[in-house]
Amino acid sequence: MTTLEKIEKLRVLLKKQKLDAYIITSNDPHLSEYVPEFWKARAWFSGFSGSAGTVVVSKENAALWTDSRYFLQAEQQLEKSGIELCKMGLPETPSIEEWLAMNIGKHARIGLDGRLQSVQGVQGTIDRLKRYGIEVITSIDLIDPIWDNRPSLPHNKAFTHELKYSGLTISEKIGLIRGELSKYDADATLLTALDEVCWAFNLRGSDVAFNPVVLAYGLITDNEATLFIDSQKIDESTANLLSQERVKVKDYNKIEKELGKLGKHDTILIDPQKVNYHLYKHIGEKAPVIEKLSPAALLKARKNSVELEGFRNAMVADGVALTKFFIWLEQNVDSATITELTIAEKLREFRSLNSNFISESFDTIAGYADHGAIVHYSATQQTSYTIKPEGFLLVDSGGQYYSGTTDITRTVHLSTPSAEEMQDYTLVLKGMIQLSMINFPVGTRGTQLDVLARMAMWNKNINYGHGTGHGVGCFLNVHEGPQSIRPNENPILLEVGMVQSNEPGIYRAGKYGIRIENLIACQPAAETAFGKFLRFETLTLCPIDTKPIDKMLLTKEETEWLNNYHSMVFSKLNKFLTEEEKQWLENKTKPL
Amino acid sequence: MTTLEKIEKLRVLLKKQKLDAYIITSNDPHLSEYVPEFWKARAWFSGFSGSAGTVVVSKENAALWTDSRYFLQAEQQLEKSGIELCKMGLPETPSIEEWLAMNIGKHARIGLDGRLQSVQGVQGTIDRLKRYGIEVITSIDLIDPIWDNRPSLPHNKAFTHELKYSGLTISEKIGLIRGELSKYDADATLLTALDEVCWAFNLRGSDVAFNPVVLAYGLITDNEATLFIDSQKIDESTANLLSQERVKVKDYNKIEKELGKLGKHDTILIDPQKVNYHLYKHIGEKAPVIEKLSPAALLKARKNSVELEGFRNAMVADGVALTKFFIWLEQNVDSATITELTIAEKLREFRSLNSNFISESFDTIAGYADHGAIVHYSATQQTSYTIKPEGFLLVDSGGQYYSGTTDITRTVHLSTPSAEEMQDYTLVLKGMIQLSMINFPVGTRGTQLDVLARMAMWNKNINYGHGTGHGVGCFLNVHEGPQSIRPNENPILLEVGMVQSNEPGIYRAGKYGIRIENLIACQPAAETAFGKFLRFETLTLCPIDTKPIDKMLLTKEETEWLNNYHSMVFSKLNKFLTEEEKQWLENKTKPL
Repeated sequence: MTTLEKIEKLRVLLKKQKLDAYIITSNDPHLSEYVPEFWKARAWFSGFSGSAGTVVVSKENAALWTDSRYFLQAEQQLEKSGIELCKMGLPETPSIEEWLAMNIGKHARIGLDGRLQSVQGVQGTIDRLKRYGIEVITSIDLIDPIWDNRPSLPHNKAFTHELKYSGLTISEKIGLIRGELSKYDADATLLTALDEVCWAFNLRGSDVAFNPVVLAYGLITDNEATLFIDSQKIDESTANLLSQERVKVKDYNKIEKELGKLGKHDTILIDPQKVNYHLYKHIGEKAPVIEKLSPAALLKARKNSVELEGFRNAMVADGVALTKFFIWLEQNVDSATITELTIAEKLREFRSLNSNFISESFDTIAGYADHGAIVHYSATQQTSYTIKPEGFLLVDSGGQYYSGTTDITRTVHLSTPSAEEMQDYTLVLKGMIQLSMINFPVGTRGTQLDVLARMAMWNKNINYGHGTGHGVGCFLNVHEGPQSIRPNENPILLEVGMVQSNEPGIYRAGKYGIRIENLIACQPAAETAFGKFLRFETLTLCPIDTKPIDKMLLTKEETEWLNNYHSMVFSKLNKFLTEEEKQWLENKTKPL
Repeated sequence: MTTLEKIEKLRVLLKKQKLDAYIITSNDPHLSEYVPEFWKARAWFSGFSGSAGTVVVSKENAALWTDSRYFLQAEQQLEKSGIELCKMGLPETPSIEEWLAMNIGKHARIGLDGRLQSVQGVQGTIDRLKRYGIEVITSIDLIDPIWDNRPSLPHNKAFTHELKYSGLTISEKIGLIRGELSKYDADATLLTALDEVCWAFNLRGSDVAFNPVVLAYGLITDNEATLFIDSQKIDESTANLLSQERVKVKDYNKIEKELGKLGKHDTILIDPQKVNYHLYKHIGEKAPVIEKLSPAALLKARKNSVELEGFRNAMVADGVALTKFFIWLEQNVDSATITELTIAEKLREFRSLNSNFISESFDTIAGYADHGAIVHYSATQQTSYTIKPEGFLLVDSGGQYYSGTTDITRTVHLSTPSAEEMQDYTLVLKGMIQLSMINFPVGTRGTQLDVLARMAMWNKNINYGHGTGHGVGCFLNVHEGPQSIRPNENPILLEVGMVQSNEPGIYRAGKYGIRIENLIACQPAAETAFGKFLRFETLTLCPIDTKPIDKMLLTKEETEWLNNYHSMVFSKLNKFLTEEEKQWLENKTKPL
């Protein structure tokens, strides 16, 4: 079926439903970053496969909104589709609401599937369209009736995240959530984000690419904890454990019904950015609703000592794999056999040597030369460069291990760096080190620290357009909140146990990209007359290329930090290496 | 009349008005930082003279809320007053609303004078008390009837801030304001903050201590600009200028009536944090109200080139006065004749030698030894220390000059500093220099830069509890918004022309305080492939004591910055000094 045919079929349904337009999003009901095939409706409908995009189809027109990362790809994939491209962020681009106002006029009716957007998202759409007199019908699915051969829902098995990795039993976690609820006089909360459900119930799975999660909802009340999941996903031992922990298991599709039972004495806390609008509307009419950050989000972000030790173990495994990878790269770069795609394969291969490795934590970014400057680059057969012994290669990759999740970027220079390359590389390194070295008072937000990673390059009038740090889950999503280290305000404080990335970069379009990324964990530093202070523990274990460093640009403290870091890398990895590998690592980690 | 008698008189009025409690604030109708005597109702009523405090009197009880700066002073001044002290910020202290709920119970009525609180403040009080069923009557003045011998309103003359200082005519400024209004489709705005009125109408006066402002309101509509002011304050030449600029002049008390004339086609923009509730309620019922930051605030904050040149001239005058002062201090510190109070007098004396000096811009803080650690210290006859040739002396002072406002802190060591003193002093200096040196992209907020002034001390687990930078007016208020450099989020961007302070500090209770403060102006720095960048120009001209510097703690760049700064100080000041002064300055500004 061509996109034009799909549009025609949709328009027949529009007419039947007396609608003037329909909105197709890229989400699943859990609003996941990585979406199971079953819910990739926008990609199926439009042919545009990027990770972000919304299609709107009216009786006469159709358009797709996406951001600058995907302008080129969307233009190609939408060719002859009958869908016009609306480039988000450009001044001349109308918003979806403005486009609707122009295309369907006042006093129209549009439809959307409330399961596939957040409470906040749908309420925003309703409010903004109200100004144009456009009504929004929020419970209409026009995709399923026209989607022939729709992929099935994932039926993969779930498994228990063992106590030796999680550090807390399900009951303990439920207890912590109830403690948070009591602060707001709330009696219940609904967990819909898959990583929050998996965290709370010590479950893992493989329903989604890169994130080891399983499709499920959680409903936690004063005296019950219920997991809503396809019972076929649960094996006997997991079922027994859940039962021991007094977790009720109900079918995935029973969640609406259970929410409907809530009454006026069941104040429920929901996160309006995470809960989908459909579930929100199914909460019992009389149940008071409190809209707040999900209590599981902060609890999950503050890793306990068992989880942190798990991260450290995962980092050793990852560091060994990366050592082998960079040796292989050095030995083969002259042979003209390595491409951006084979780099990803080889990394997977080296990581797979460790029995605790489950999968990659995201799609490897191997950006050679000017591809390194495309921040969200992902090599394809068409674009993949063959690596030559010259210039910069940026490799951003990560792994899921039972005990933790890794995310690391190294940029290596494959011959003799130019003065500009050395300056840029050293500025990025200085930023990464300055953020690694800081002590900061309890009560500090990531926003306050972001500049540390930028100040050296700012003083050369250079900047990067992405954030400096995102939270990382423990054998969970590689991107998690609620904390971050970014220029934008985020009121969440950095707290002991939080794990996040530290990844400044410099991107020279058409030339190269440089990014250096470690994961860092918040730890107590000291208590003085001036209060309590925190610091970052660097978790990632992998040498940082010293060849492109302009030593004159490093301060004494920065050089010391790098030498100490390299000494730690060698001491933690060397016992897992062959003699040859050990020699290579010793050479790569010798003091500046 | 004792406070107890005042309370009794107030309670008679409470009964007459059928009220259960009354709130007395410290504000004037313009919500000024420095309040004319006429409006110092809370100080008159309670005897507590601190700058911040609110009194609530119920039928049975009375209490005063103030912050930690004033706990000691308030305890002393409230002794036997019949007013209990509520220490704000302590966990056991009830809020005013909680106190009212406990003391007057549900379904009560309280009164306040809506002229003396902002729209945002009164609406917050109403909302919070609604939860307890307490009604708020917002237009009751129970103070004037009982205040015998109340001071009169200030009747000082206004004068024109000449074009050679302001850089823009009144018409040009009104035009800029109208331009901002049109962005919100607003037809009018009400200026109530005295510095905004004075800025817009190029007026200055002396109605308020330290701030060269005059009591007035401004109402700017699409086609009229009206100044509401006591006509006796306006001399003929000012009246002529206002008339030439097509400004209507009406009596100060006519503002309510004019606001009442606004109708449904007069959309008015008001700043809910600056406009008092009484005026807000007098806006014509049908006039649509938009609540936004006052457009005059940002326009005033972005100094034009004439104003910036005026600042530079004022800094030369100030630097000459400070040079003379520090020479005098050095020559007399051994004589045991200098006290914290004589320091303030002497500074005023040296500044007064310049004919463009009008007044101090705030009450000088001369904090010797442990007094330096009290951030808002102000010496009195009782507390004033005699300065000895030992330890740290912190001097924070400023002047109002026709062309600009100054605010400077220097901390000098009067003998041989200890290792701890040198460490702390150098950490403060490093912070001040790091913030001075930074380049930053257009679009940066002060919040993002605050850490630069703290990172060196944070790495030694030291911090300070105040912000790093406040905006400074041009021959206007020494504290102005809307930008700031603080840990707290403030969405206002730093823009070209903005002038602010740069004043990190370290305070060791019982020992000493160190603060080093310069004023810095935002300037364009560069435009590169990475966008436009800004930098700070340091305006303040006065040597920084080098004796307590631990040179080993400074980076090469920091030492260079200090040497360049000192070289600039000498080159800009030396021609206004005697031979002897010049030699002193040369010695104080020689390279490290």
